[in-house]
Amino acid sequence: MKTLREAPKDEEARGAQFLIRAGYVNKEMAGVYNYLPLGLKAIEKIKAVIREEMAGLGAEEIEMTALQNAKTWQASGRWDDKVMDVWFKTKLNAGGEVGLAPTHEEPITKMLTAYVNSYKDLPCSVFQFQTKFRNELRAKSGILRTREFLMKDLYSFAKNREEHEEFYHKVEASYKRIYEKLGLPQVYQCFASGGAFSKYSHEFQCLTPVGEDTIYHNADFSVVLNEEVLNDEVLSELGVKREELVSEKAAEVGNIFTLGEKYSEPLGLKFNDENGERKNVFMGSYGIGVSRVFGVIAEKMADEKGLVLPSAISPYQYYLIGIGDEGMRAAEEIYARAPEKFIFDDRDERPGVKFADAELIGIPERVVVSDKTLRDGKIEVVTRANGATKLLTKEEFLSKLS
Amino acid sequence: MKTLREAPKDEEARGAQFLIRAGYVNKEMAGVYNYLPLGLKAIEKIKAVIREEMAGLGAEEIEMTALQNAKTWQASGRWDDKVMDVWFKTKLNAGGEVGLAPTHEEPITKMLTAYVNSYKDLPCSVFQFQTKFRNELRAKSGILRTREFLMKDLYSFAKNREEHEEFYHKVEASYKRIYEKLGLPQVYQCFASGGAFSKYSHEFQCLTPVGEDTIYHNADFSVVLNEEVLNDEVLSELGVKREELVSEKAAEVGNIFTLGEKYSEPLGLKFNDENGERKNVFMGSYGIGVSRVFGVIAEKMADEKGLVLPSAISPYQYYLIGIGDEGMRAAEEIYARAPEKFIFDDRDERPGVKFADAELIGIPERVVVSDKTLRDGKIEVVTRANGATKLLTKEEFLSKLS
Repeated sequence: MKTLREAPKDEEARGAQFLIRAGYVNKEMAGVYNYLPLGLKAIEKIKAVIREEMAGLGAEEIEMTALQNAKTWQASGRWDDKVMDVWFKTKLNAGGEVGLAPTHEEPITKMLTAYVNSYKDLPCSVFQFQTKFRNELRAKSGILRTREFLMKDLYSFAKNREEHEEFYHKVEASYKRIYEKLGLPQVYQCFASGGAFSKYSHEFQCLTPVGEDTIYHNADFSVVLNEEVLNDEVLSELGVKREELVSEKAAEVGNIFTLGEKYSEPLGLKFNDENGERKNVFMGSYGIGVSRVFGVIAEKMADEKGLVLPSAISPYQYYLIGIGDEGMRAAEEIYARAPEKFIFDDRDERPGVKFADAELIGIPERVVVSDKTLRDGKIEVVTRANGATKLLTKEEFLSKLS
Repeated sequence: MKTLREAPKDEEARGAQFLIRAGYVNKEMAGVYNYLPLGLKAIEKIKAVIREEMAGLGAEEIEMTALQNAKTWQASGRWDDKVMDVWFKTKLNAGGEVGLAPTHEEPITKMLTAYVNSYKDLPCSVFQFQTKFRNELRAKSGILRTREFLMKDLYSFAKNREEHEEFYHKVEASYKRIYEKLGLPQVYQCFASGGAFSKYSHEFQCLTPVGEDTIYHNADFSVVLNEEVLNDEVLSELGVKREELVSEKAAEVGNIFTLGEKYSEPLGLKFNDENGERKNVFMGSYGIGVSRVFGVIAEKMADEKGLVLPSAISPYQYYLIGIGDEGMRAAEEIYARAPEKFIFDDRDERPGVKFADAELIGIPERVVVSDKTLRDGKIEVVTRANGATKLLTKEEFLSKLS
């Protein structure tokens, strides 16, 4: 790992500049980012939080492919570039055209026709962490809107609307817990436009000036809606007046959607009910942009010196610096106790350079062991978020580690 | 999870048929496979074995992108479809052409120009588990040669050839341990063609009739070479006579390659040595096809009834069946002790159906708790590989679990 003095000139968002300079990501080209060791560790921590919640929902993890068969998408009408304008398409040397999945409703629906046949097979749900490809005309705001990104997508399959809604409400609660556990503040569930099978979908919107969406909310956020559904009918239905609402910019960090029979009908995902009647499966889809969540955290949780990551997603808990011969020896001993918790900055650099990098990288706590602090038998621990400084004995600090 | 009676008709390889029927993978289209919960668990186990060895080598994990900038590959000459004939290329809506990475030498070399500048930054090594895309004219042998597959690729960066070779030998030893830990037998290190910076590369070839390569070896496998380097010069260099060698079909499950300055020179990956002289970094690359390893295991480790997976990669250790009321109750109790170790087949099916599925899926041990065995206070444990049957008390079995 190595920090950089400058981010690429075309990188406008502050969070993205920090992520690049701190060595979390590297820009391959516009809207396409490589993950360096620190960035990959942060992403894995986000995935672990989500995975725990998916297990709680009883969803099974799978992994579908990026390459997509045109036929599957022709059935739903979404192969057409006019209907889905973000396709990357490419040709097989063996003949024929394939696409890169921008989402997975069609292939998952088709795949489940092999495994769902009876009411006994329902309800069920599956999820994946999978790279999506979207041919965006303009890549924006660092890792917020990119052409290749990691998404968690969950799909549910139910016998009927009631069974679907029961699961849908569980996902609502689960998503709220996910943002809380990640330490991402100011995330609100928001009404957005629905489809043929439900008047609304729900988005989880996080307030940030770099967000692409505009949301409207009342004073206590008990009503939050996307600009796209701001009309008299919706306002009266939600029992709120236009003048009670204020608008803010926000970034979508999740969405949940009642698909109903939109895909099961054209792709033939049916089941025999208790009376032997053949029915369409009732579906839902639920997304979280994993790399986008990381991007939003980088935008929101930073100051002028660098990132201020929450513990839940920080690749390490401590940034460890030893100063002086004795300080360095003591730091080495501490590091050896729990190497997975530390970035140990043992470079041959001045302390000032190390302090600046610690702030740029945004690890929650900086631990300094110097000849000077050791004279009083102490170790200095500084919280990145608020600068609070504590002097602990070595024993006190080590007991925090275990 | 659900087993299927039949695999797709165009699926010829026996291992691939079993993987599909047992519910490990699902065929999206020719050469493109989705991973179902069982398959994904097996892949994660393979990754864990490899990751442990990569940590031992001191390599850092990263994740690069699939989308590739034409310019980076034009520098090495490999953007040309005549030089690299497996490219998938696609157009950006914003203008310009991008490719889907068939491998990552070029982008990793270019990326490291931002982080490597001095001899102090070397040696270093990075690896990733990343999906590769290859536009194969013919997809073959199930998941052995596919158009989209998971690969572990490791890249090393050294100051000079000596430093490179030291790492190269460590990787050789590490790869041998990986195949051993995975439980994949008959893997041999094999001489294959090299490049401008080394006469040979090394492949790890696993004997199997479905393999695409032909290797030649002597009686004790102390000399193993790929057909492509079978010539008088090589034979005399290895001190072996043509008539001492026999040929066999094999599948490549890994390769290690001295790249030298092949990519560092055109992509400008240089460093200042101790004397301030600017030099090219000396590189190596080391691949293991993760999904291919799984495919080879499925081909080799199977009998007429189904798969016979080694414990190291089996998604679960035990296939649990309860027979009769009391048997089912006891099975539920056992399952609750360590659910992560069991597939608990609690379907409303005849025991014969469950036994057949247990054999198809190839979980290492089948555990049957029936009213009959319980009359003697016993549980039946059958080893999938050899049919060996043991009767254990519940206590004896539970003590194996912890």
